[in-house]
Amino acid sequence: MNCIKTPTKGMNDYLPAEMRLREYVLGLIKKTYAGYGFCQIETPCVEHIENLTSKQGGENEKLIFKILKRGEKLAGAQNPDEMCDSGLRYDLTLPLSRYYANNMAALPSPFKALQIGNVWRADRPQKGRFRQFTQCDIDILGDASNLAEIELINATTSVLGQLGFEDFKVRVNDRRILKAMAAVAGFEEDAFGDVFIILDKMDKIGLDGVERELLESGYPEAAVKTYVGFFEKAGQGLSCGEFCGQALAGALEPGVVEGLDTILSCVKATAAKPFELAFDPTLVRGMGYYTGTIFEVELSDFGSSVAGGGRYDEMVGRFCGQKVPACGFSIGFERIVTILKDRGFAPPEEGRKVAFLADKALGGEKLTALFQEAAALRAEGVQVMVTTR
Amino acid sequence: MNCIKTPTKGMNDYLPAEMRLREYVLGLIKKTYAGYGFCQIETPCVEHIENLTSKQGGENEKLIFKILKRGEKLAGAQNPDEMCDSGLRYDLTLPLSRYYANNMAALPSPFKALQIGNVWRADRPQKGRFRQFTQCDIDILGDASNLAEIELINATTSVLGQLGFEDFKVRVNDRRILKAMAAVAGFEEDAFGDVFIILDKMDKIGLDGVERELLESGYPEAAVKTYVGFFEKAGQGLSCGEFCGQALAGALEPGVVEGLDTILSCVKATAAKPFELAFDPTLVRGMGYYTGTIFEVELSDFGSSVAGGGRYDEMVGRFCGQKVPACGFSIGFERIVTILKDRGFAPPEEGRKVAFLADKALGGEKLTALFQEAAALRAEGVQVMVTTR
Repeated sequence: MNCIKTPTKGMNDYLPAEMRLREYVLGLIKKTYAGYGFCQIETPCVEHIENLTSKQGGENEKLIFKILKRGEKLAGAQNPDEMCDSGLRYDLTLPLSRYYANNMAALPSPFKALQIGNVWRADRPQKGRFRQFTQCDIDILGDASNLAEIELINATTSVLGQLGFEDFKVRVNDRRILKAMAAVAGFEEDAFGDVFIILDKMDKIGLDGVERELLESGYPEAAVKTYVGFFEKAGQGLSCGEFCGQALAGALEPGVVEGLDTILSCVKATAAKPFELAFDPTLVRGMGYYTGTIFEVELSDFGSSVAGGGRYDEMVGRFCGQKVPACGFSIGFERIVTILKDRGFAPPEEGRKVAFLADKALGGEKLTALFQEAAALRAEGVQVMVTTR
Repeated sequence: MNCIKTPTKGMNDYLPAEMRLREYVLGLIKKTYAGYGFCQIETPCVEHIENLTSKQGGENEKLIFKILKRGEKLAGAQNPDEMCDSGLRYDLTLPLSRYYANNMAALPSPFKALQIGNVWRADRPQKGRFRQFTQCDIDILGDASNLAEIELINATTSVLGQLGFEDFKVRVNDRRILKAMAAVAGFEEDAFGDVFIILDKMDKIGLDGVERELLESGYPEAAVKTYVGFFEKAGQGLSCGEFCGQALAGALEPGVVEGLDTILSCVKATAAKPFELAFDPTLVRGMGYYTGTIFEVELSDFGSSVAGGGRYDEMVGRFCGQKVPACGFSIGFERIVTILKDRGFAPPEEGRKVAFLADKALGGEKLTALFQEAAALRAEGVQVMVTTR
């Protein structure tokens, strides 16, 4: 007895009942997304360390599980950095971008991808947050138009609706609006990332807290005052055009406001079931790679988001040198499953099940007859458990 | 353009057409095994390094992808061995044994498990052999009777039959027969593992080659002669009882021959479709953990095995100190898929598909009408692709 029987820290063994729920949700996701024309693909769980540490993953790059080189290559390495050639992926977007760059010639354009797979982050484990977890992403590559956003939001919310979620809210924003506000307020472009991280805490620390943290970080008082001023109008149900108004007119590239309006009005008119959908200028999203629209789904009885995504038009170009518009939406599969479990959700039963209990000593013709009877029932679609007493 | 667009060495990007085939095969496997009462479970891809290096994985332990410790724990490590706390699993049997030991109280007994997942081996990549690959294992834990072997062989061959394979052969042996032969011949018990590795090359080097290698390894000539003598009767279609005969009578524990006879006769009488099934005293199987029956499936047009398994009654005990009988059968999923591709196998079509081509500039009511029409078709089960022209 010299082996360890618990799973590695923050990772899970799934018992049969939980697996039935997970498989049911995955089946529904696959079927629904297929209806929207998304094709399933797969990428390796192991990714080049150069790609994982290329500064596109934001905070997640600090949480990488790194894999040691092997053989002679390891022997020649001097320090931990030189010792690793790969790591476990922290999301599915980076591998998808690599995949698209690598296989572009064999794929249709636009390409609608569904990717379901495990990702790993060496985070502090807590309820509903694990070190190995499943993500379900849909992405549209090669489509710069708003059709991509509309399809992604409709498909994702259709899945949520079919799982019985009705009390969810979709918030939409655009990174270009976030940047224009920061620029007009007078922040240096280098500071945008840091400013957005502070803004992202709004729901926890309020607008006063955001102002205080910006000042504490040493940003000019005039810039902070102007910036905070913009957000005093947030949460009042203003449309994107009303919110941005004249203030951002010069700083915002043409079409951004109209694009968001088209997305919001078209989704409202065509969603499978109605849900709350609104422009929210305080929405940030953590990942560094977003370049345009960003969106997030929140459930009223669950603190954080259950799905999120956005446009990342620059990422595929990092792999192939050719700019490819791209937009994706990721379902927080583990959170969805956690909520369904808490709600006592049970997947539909799978048909008739019977058990045959055989004596351990059973042999000869009687044993054969037992398995023949089991085979006949199985041929009719019955699940038959043959087991010893 | 500073990122690498190819996958890491020996690992694959799967294009949509290949994914459809993989998903079809997985679906058929899940449905068939459910019919036999197997419950799907999942274990983490990352396993404790202590478990992976506990000398149960044979040659696979040399091929582990090891994962670096993080933070302070890494800083305190002096050499590569101390720097790792975990690694990627090289098979699904070791994690299953850990899982069963950890969750025994919550599981039925006997427990019939289906586990589908990726495993990793830093092997030299070649056709049909990858560094990340999918395994599909069924295992029965807590059943010491031959019912386990019969169910496992029937279930696995039923899957192969449904995929259109008819030309396969199932070979069965027992580790206890292998050991008895080696003991009676006069080899020391310490040498058994090495002797079996040489015997396992029989199909490549012939019985003469086995004799030569055993002698070259320095084993006593008398032992080698006696041992090789046993195998002169192999391949003549003898039953287990006829083969073992008087020679092994004293060395073989009671019931081994009868057990194999029961398995062979019952499977022959109850298999979903008839196939070649035979006792083969030269079958070895590489993994160190087998303790009893072992079996392997070969396709006539494919060199190596496409499925294999056996009984490993000692492994769960390594995790919990309590002996639990266990027996499993693993399908070589990647090999099956490779052969199906080579044969031009196409999964059944998934129903009606249509594409709506929209102009990039489309907006307002026309855009809404397009998505409404798509939604109506999707509600009828049609796969609708809305995309730009």
